[in-house]
Amino acid sequence: MKLDKFRDECGVFGAFGHPEAARMVFLGLYALQHRGQESGGIVHMNGGRLKSVRGMGHIVDIYREHELTAMGGPNAIGHVRYSTAGESHIGNAQPILIDSHRGQIALAHNGNLVNALQLRRDLERDGAIFQSSSDSEVILHLIARSRAESIEDAITEALMQVKGAFSLIFLTPDKMYAVRDPHGFRPLSIGQLGHTVLVASETCALDIVDAQWLRDVAPGEMVIISNAGEQSLMPFPETKTTQCIFEHVYFSRPDSYVFGRSVSLSRNILGRELAREHPVDADMVIPIPDSGVFAAIGFAQESGIPFEFGLIRNHYVGRTFIEPKQSIRNFGVRVKLNPVRDVLEGKRVVVVDDSIVRGTTSRKIVRMLRMAGAKEVHFRVSCPPTIGSCYYGIDTPYRHDLIASSHSIEEIRKYLDADSLGYLNIDGLMKAVGNEPKFCTACYTLNYPVEFPQEQLAQLRLFAEEPALEPAGHRLVETPQLVRRE
Amino acid sequence: MKLDKFRDECGVFGAFGHPEAARMVFLGLYALQHRGQESGGIVHMNGGRLKSVRGMGHIVDIYREHELTAMGGPNAIGHVRYSTAGESHIGNAQPILIDSHRGQIALAHNGNLVNALQLRRDLERDGAIFQSSSDSEVILHLIARSRAESIEDAITEALMQVKGAFSLIFLTPDKMYAVRDPHGFRPLSIGQLGHTVLVASETCALDIVDAQWLRDVAPGEMVIISNAGEQSLMPFPETKTTQCIFEHVYFSRPDSYVFGRSVSLSRNILGRELAREHPVDADMVIPIPDSGVFAAIGFAQESGIPFEFGLIRNHYVGRTFIEPKQSIRNFGVRVKLNPVRDVLEGKRVVVVDDSIVRGTTSRKIVRMLRMAGAKEVHFRVSCPPTIGSCYYGIDTPYRHDLIASSHSIEEIRKYLDADSLGYLNIDGLMKAVGNEPKFCTACYTLNYPVEFPQEQLAQLRLFAEEPALEPAGHRLVETPQLVRRE
Amino acid sequence: MKLDKFRDECGVFGAFGHPEAARMVFLGLYALQHRGQESGGIVHMNGGRLKSVRGMGHIVDIYREHELTAMGGPNAIGHVRYSTAGESHIGNAQPILIDSHRGQIALAHNGNLVNALQLRRDLERDGAIFQSSSDSEVILHLIARSRAESIEDAITEALMQVKGAFSLIFLTPDKMYAVRDPHGFRPLSIGQLGHTVLVASETCALDIVDAQWLRDVAPGEMVIISNAGEQSLMPFPETKTTQCIFEHVYFSRPDSYVFGRSVSLSRNILGRELAREHPVDADMVIPIPDSGVFAAIGFAQESGIPFEFGLIRNHYVGRTFIEPKQSIRNFGVRVKLNPVRDVLEGKRVVVVDDSIVRGTTSRKIVRMLRMAGAKEVHFRVSCPPTIGSCYYGIDTPYRHDLIASSHSIEEIRKYLDADSLGYLNIDGLMKAVGNEPKFCTACYTLNYPVEFPQEQLAQLRLFAEEPALEPAGHRLVETPQLVRRE
Amino acid sequence: MKLDKFRDECGVFGAFGHPEAARMVFLGLYALQHRGQESGGIVHMNGGRLKSVRGMGHIVDIYREHELTAMGGPNAIGHVRYSTAGESHIGNAQPILIDSHRGQIALAHNGNLVNALQLRRDLERDGAIFQSSSDSEVILHLIARSRAESIEDAITEALMQVKGAFSLIFLTPDKMYAVRDPHGFRPLSIGQLGHTVLVASETCALDIVDAQWLRDVAPGEMVIISNAGEQSLMPFPETKTTQCIFEHVYFSRPDSYVFGRSVSLSRNILGRELAREHPVDADMVIPIPDSGVFAAIGFAQESGIPFEFGLIRNHYVGRTFIEPKQSIRNFGVRVKLNPVRDVLEGKRVVVVDDSIVRGTTSRKIVRMLRMAGAKEVHFRVSCPPTIGSCYYGIDTPYRHDLIASSHSIEEIRKYLDADSLGYLNIDGLMKAVGNEPKFCTACYTLNYPVEFPQEQLAQLRLFAEEPALEPAGHRLVETPQLVRRE
Repeated sequence: MKLDKFRDECGVFGAFGHPEAARMVFLGLYALQHRGQESGGIVHMNGGRLKSVRGMGHIVDIYREHELTAMGGPNAIGHVRYSTAGESHIGNAQPILIDSHRGQIALAHNGNLVNALQLRRDLERDGAIFQSSSDSEVILHLIARSRAESIEDAITEALMQVKGAFSLIFLTPDKMYAVRDPHGFRPLSIGQLGHTVLVASETCALDIVDAQWLRDVAPGEMVIISNAGEQSLMPFPETKTTQCIFEHVYFSRPDSYVFGRSVSLSRNILGRELAREHPVDADMVIPIPDSGVFAAIGFAQESGIPFEFGLIRNHYVGRTFIEPKQSIRNFGVRVKLNPVRDVLEGKRVVVVDDSIVRGTTSRKIVRMLRMAGAKEVHFRVSCPPTIGSCYYGIDTPYRHDLIASSHSIEEIRKYLDADSLGYLNIDGLMKAVGNEPKFCTACYTLNYPVEFPQEQLAQLRLFAEEPALEPAGHRLVETPQLVRRE
Repeated sequence: MKLDKFRDECGVFGAFGHPEAARMVFLGLYALQHRGQESGGIVHMNGGRLKSVRGMGHIVDIYREHELTAMGGPNAIGHVRYSTAGESHIGNAQPILIDSHRGQIALAHNGNLVNALQLRRDLERDGAIFQSSSDSEVILHLIARSRAESIEDAITEALMQVKGAFSLIFLTPDKMYAVRDPHGFRPLSIGQLGHTVLVASETCALDIVDAQWLRDVAPGEMVIISNAGEQSLMPFPETKTTQCIFEHVYFSRPDSYVFGRSVSLSRNILGRELAREHPVDADMVIPIPDSGVFAAIGFAQESGIPFEFGLIRNHYVGRTFIEPKQSIRNFGVRVKLNPVRDVLEGKRVVVVDDSIVRGTTSRKIVRMLRMAGAKEVHFRVSCPPTIGSCYYGIDTPYRHDLIASSHSIEEIRKYLDADSLGYLNIDGLMKAVGNEPKFCTACYTLNYPVEFPQEQLAQLRLFAEEPALEPAGHRLVETPQLVRRE
Repeated sequence: MKLDKFRDECGVFGAFGHPEAARMVFLGLYALQHRGQESGGIVHMNGGRLKSVRGMGHIVDIYREHELTAMGGPNAIGHVRYSTAGESHIGNAQPILIDSHRGQIALAHNGNLVNALQLRRDLERDGAIFQSSSDSEVILHLIARSRAESIEDAITEALMQVKGAFSLIFLTPDKMYAVRDPHGFRPLSIGQLGHTVLVASETCALDIVDAQWLRDVAPGEMVIISNAGEQSLMPFPETKTTQCIFEHVYFSRPDSYVFGRSVSLSRNILGRELAREHPVDADMVIPIPDSGVFAAIGFAQESGIPFEFGLIRNHYVGRTFIEPKQSIRNFGVRVKLNPVRDVLEGKRVVVVDDSIVRGTTSRKIVRMLRMAGAKEVHFRVSCPPTIGSCYYGIDTPYRHDLIASSHSIEEIRKYLDADSLGYLNIDGLMKAVGNEPKFCTACYTLNYPVEFPQEQLAQLRLFAEEPALEPAGHRLVETPQLVRRE
Repeated sequence: MKLDKFRDECGVFGAFGHPEAARMVFLGLYALQHRGQESGGIVHMNGGRLKSVRGMGHIVDIYREHELTAMGGPNAIGHVRYSTAGESHIGNAQPILIDSHRGQIALAHNGNLVNALQLRRDLERDGAIFQSSSDSEVILHLIARSRAESIEDAITEALMQVKGAFSLIFLTPDKMYAVRDPHGFRPLSIGQLGHTVLVASETCALDIVDAQWLRDVAPGEMVIISNAGEQSLMPFPETKTTQCIFEHVYFSRPDSYVFGRSVSLSRNILGRELAREHPVDADMVIPIPDSGVFAAIGFAQESGIPFEFGLIRNHYVGRTFIEPKQSIRNFGVRVKLNPVRDVLEGKRVVVVDDSIVRGTTSRKIVRMLRMAGAKEVHFRVSCPPTIGSCYYGIDTPYRHDLIASSHSIEEIRKYLDADSLGYLNIDGLMKAVGNEPKFCTACYTLNYPVEFPQEQLAQLRLFAEEPALEPAGHRLVETPQLVRRE
């Protein structure tokens, strides 16, 4: 049972200069598992060569203790990808490891390139061959083709050509490079543990190895880590910073600092603002766990309505997809969430969630709460209505599948069968993240900071391993998710 | 990384009269996974014979979709066991399925028999052979040896001989039996979905299949389920009800009704009482997730101190045991729990946990909270000091390993390095569960409702597959956990 | 693709007094793999207790290198079982390891008990519970119930009650026992390597560990191996020796000495006698590999007709059962055997096989040889027509499925579409094994040396995990294979 | 235990125009398993796109029944690679599937390119990236970079640049291409089954799907298979045919026709010639199974000395590498081969093998035969002394490891401790394959038909995943095996 959520697409982690670098990467990826459950991989130094071990599933199921020990150090990078069905996608798992005239290069990429198709076409026309449907492979081709003398310059030259979102870690036999696109769409932090340098999508992955968070890689920055120390370059033309606001709303772990700001703090304010904007007379505030917890606490604190846990989440996941059959009546969302009847019975309940995508799960939750005795159900969403697909590294449905893209709030309320429905407005959202105008809010505003070549999206499917399944009349301009499968 | 907790030992589930009985059992066990993660098993009807499919690990990893479909119905029972290392214990997985002169009988057992060793000795002396180190196997031998005419009488006769805790589901080719020991130590509930009868350790397992909770199997009751309907017997002499209070404190899911009472309600009151008994001037109340959440909410509500989430739990688990090596500094508890620095920094924190066993984890948590910036850490435990091992179905350490068995509260506080430490007293505990004197509180009071033959405990090890590892001078009278490995 | 052959049911191996006893057992079982491919198991000493590791499939796939190293020594026994589909039979895998009032006992059994059902019934009536459908479990119950003082006497007492075929290895924490039934149906040999004593179904398993074959366990002998040395008992009443002649015809490896006689020698003489009895004017003699090779060589040597390899066998086996689908034309036996066209083209071919069971595979082979160009195909079988099922440890079809039980040789020849067909007669067979009257030939003569209780066979199915599939009108007197699944 | 043999490196198979094409490829690869046991792969059409499923190990262990059914048809190609330890080489498994400006192309390659390193360097210098250490990847880069209009011309253009051995099958979404290098080093045959066209390394793989062998792809020929029928091109300049003679001596299955000639026939003549050249007075001729069987039969037929089986081979293989430990005495070759004592005892034995590589295994075999009682051991080798490494697709040791490259025959005889030693001379070898001068005999004559750029071999290691292990002073001119890993 997958809940109806946007899904992040990747987490990256690198460790440089530690005798157990591979194990550190393993732990870091374990802490970043929420960013991708489909596949995982680690590239590590071994006998003078980089080696790659990738697999499908959760990071704890891919590696065995003795393998990690054998993988050793001193340098390693890793990657987790989002979860889908199908086991045959190992070819898309990262890090990608290649040989080139510059030697071995491994790449772990979080983000999405909007001009990957055009670049891929150009590269193919120039004789390049592609072995995955990943946009990240484009970057390696561009680096290999660069005539620049140093690998730094080659990476820069390559990245000057790509548009979109990229937080990258490269590993070569002697150096590690951490790069963020000039817009800074996706997060990337640097940490330290003794002489070991670490790079991670979120600071929670630094915590797990007891490393200290030093700072973030800045938008447009390239940090070069070698035995000689660290070096920082700013090779890209300056541009407006547009960091993904949804990292604060939903994706990142609340114990992380993302874009230099505490996620838990942002979520608390999201909840508080929501309470101010959409007050309601109720007996309790409950979150949809786990992502709604911090906003619900904020809502409760601001409104003075008691915070309660009214829904319990079952965290056990495995390789079997548990599905109801006809003869077992529709229990849908119950496999993952169960209401706490005693808490809810006879009560007027405010339920706080971080987003509504298609609305199907939300509707089941409202129904389940009512069946458990809730007298009133007031639905509160800690962000504005989601009306646009993401092109910068988030797995989102087609725009026409986003309920808010074509329905009024009152229509959605009716669909959910909620007593009231309130979305946070954009001002509240901006307040929550510090009121600085450095965020991408395209999924709420359709204000896309980086253009994407619309006429070509129709052909993205050609590179995907899975046939596209959208309905015939669908407007392909809004369906770029296939190329985003890194 | 195992947190330092008592562990429940089993969950049981049965479905009678459904074309997808095996799938229902699978779902029920999935909801009961918190009661045991070591192994799982389902016995189901197939072609006129009962068949058993058992495996190590989580229930979602043992079965594949097409197997569940093939297993079908109409009757099935299942079992989950607690988690240990070691893969070779499949022989101890349940349900146990045997052939006897009464035909096939399958048994799923939650609980522990205190006289299993004596009975096993007697049975062995009489020629019985044992194929596991489980005390549950004793019950099946007694049933097979009974001269009683009906299987009901045989079960009764057998259970009259055993002492201790047992919530049992038996399955024969045509009937299902649900039985609870006269003391009612462990829970067992009955549910209904159309014509299907369900039996489950907790009501949350009824919820997941959309079944309705009808009532509990009463202490000392045997419910016989067949195509002819249900029948209730009370075959045992009446005795004092002594239900396990720790089910409400820690084991059961908060969305369950256990012993007829809402677990979430009990925990809320535990927290409220704790706040009354051990008030403190602080900035926030935080739970140790997940088990401490409901008591922490109660504490916050009663005290008026804001509730916050100050620790994040990583729920991903897998077959690899993630262990720090020397060169990665001791991050211990961090693999599972990470503090939310922004929430904690500069704050006076009340941290609510459900119990302190050895104290080692609690000490690490206090240290971690301080390192994350907490100015004061006030530790509150939502039950009295745990001073006695359990002999009735809970995996507990030797008594001498329970920190509270040999240390004063002030000594424990010092060991934890907490600013203050408060345990709920026994009166508060009783209030939380409804102030009825029908609970076993032996782990807090050493008031054991069923005697256990002390002189024999030393030989329990003979039946365990693993060599005992306790120190030489250890008093074996208090170390009965080996035979409790069902 | 299973060829249409009788199948042996087990191989057993034991090693006493070696620091790598478990690894030796692994190697011994690897050499005995032809005796059973369904499952394998090893029971070994570990930390003062016997432990069991069993699995489905080939012995090389069950154990990993580091596990064998960890299993160590000094004593271990093992077992391989025959191959069926279905993965759920792990419960029937051996060795069986039990606890009893005599302590731990492990048993590995090759053979079949004809009165297992009656004994099982009696034991069940007396309160015994059975956890497998194996007849071997009966033996352990009888031992446990014996009042004899010593375990030797208990084993003897138990084995006095069973009828049929048993070559057994028992392991207790301090001793190993090797026993053969008084008739000596199945083989069992003793070997030595330094101070290590080994017991094996065939001498080829002694060769693989560089051990020396000392002698066979005699029919009716019990050899007791302990740190104090070996001891031999003859506890059973003397009876006629009736060793399984089919071990020499087909089952055993040709490099083994079985019943003290070289299998390769027996097969060579089988072929020579066959050539004398059924001479033919032909261009070449070819075997059906691998089992027909030695008899074909003998046939060629005696007849002077050149020996050739006209059929190639593909030895790769795996977990996938390769089956033709409708649209790929019926290639049946070709997956395993392929004709060598150049050898066969235009030639008159004598093809030598060790047996014809149902005749279906033989018919396909004749057809395949003709399609490959053979001008004439003369089928020679190195034993008499198989007319009876085996009740002593061989997996055979129902009697009515044996083509020779109901068809004349001329009818069989026609069915096979062979130019001629010749079976060895019983005198030739006896010559091949040394002309001593100490063999069981029941499958050729219906002369069963141990009676089996016919009226009870109908109920054998009750103990089998798989529902019986024979047609309704089938005469159950001849279908005892279910209880023979050890 | 690996026997000391040259190893073939690949088998390829393609099926075009069959609803179960993937299953046919599976069966074909099963028949070609002897050509490579390390990994296997199938690329098949699925929903308009080519998809790849590859794995480590034997073909029967990689695919499950239901997967093959799902993979369907109508077109598919497959590949098996040779066996090494290590599980991480999945990246080198074939077929390689790429996207390019020409669309999807899959490639299965048997052979070795001697100028792969130079081409790879050039390609890398031109910006290509490599994702494996396989020389085959070079071909796909060259095709993708070709400016030729048609894919046929692009393939031709690419293959004009490579030197060495290649038998190739390409699959595109609508066509299949079978190509053999102008020298015709490695075999490639075409078969037919109804309207389905098949391409296979050996004809035995056509037999298993009941297809008819039509003819071989000629040296230098490209066969284009499409729904419109087959088309043949001869795009390469004519050159001398130099087919690998070792396919007849050892690699191919005896039931195959290779280079249009029966392998079994060649081997029979090899044995006959060997008997003529090196007659001996002996009691029996025995083969080293399985590869020596046909030559031994020929030897026996020519010499009149009886043919016997004196060594039994254990065919069970699995994932565990069975290794002796110190305390189990050196049984080396015994895990795979066991002598038949009864056959050998007191006899003068001619043992026929197909080659001696390092001599270590041969020496152990001679010793084993003597220990089993052989009075004299006369070693006969059915080809000339192997003095040169292969550069055209065979895995051979460094030249200095070939015992015959630096030792006289008498020295080798002494090393083996044989009573006599005879190698076939080159004339006898040529007679056996039909006396036509169209074979490569470089490993016997150092007469290499295609030059290889010596000065670059030293750098081959840069592309291998495993660090090279040769001794420091080794002459690298003779150690090209790394690039030969396709």
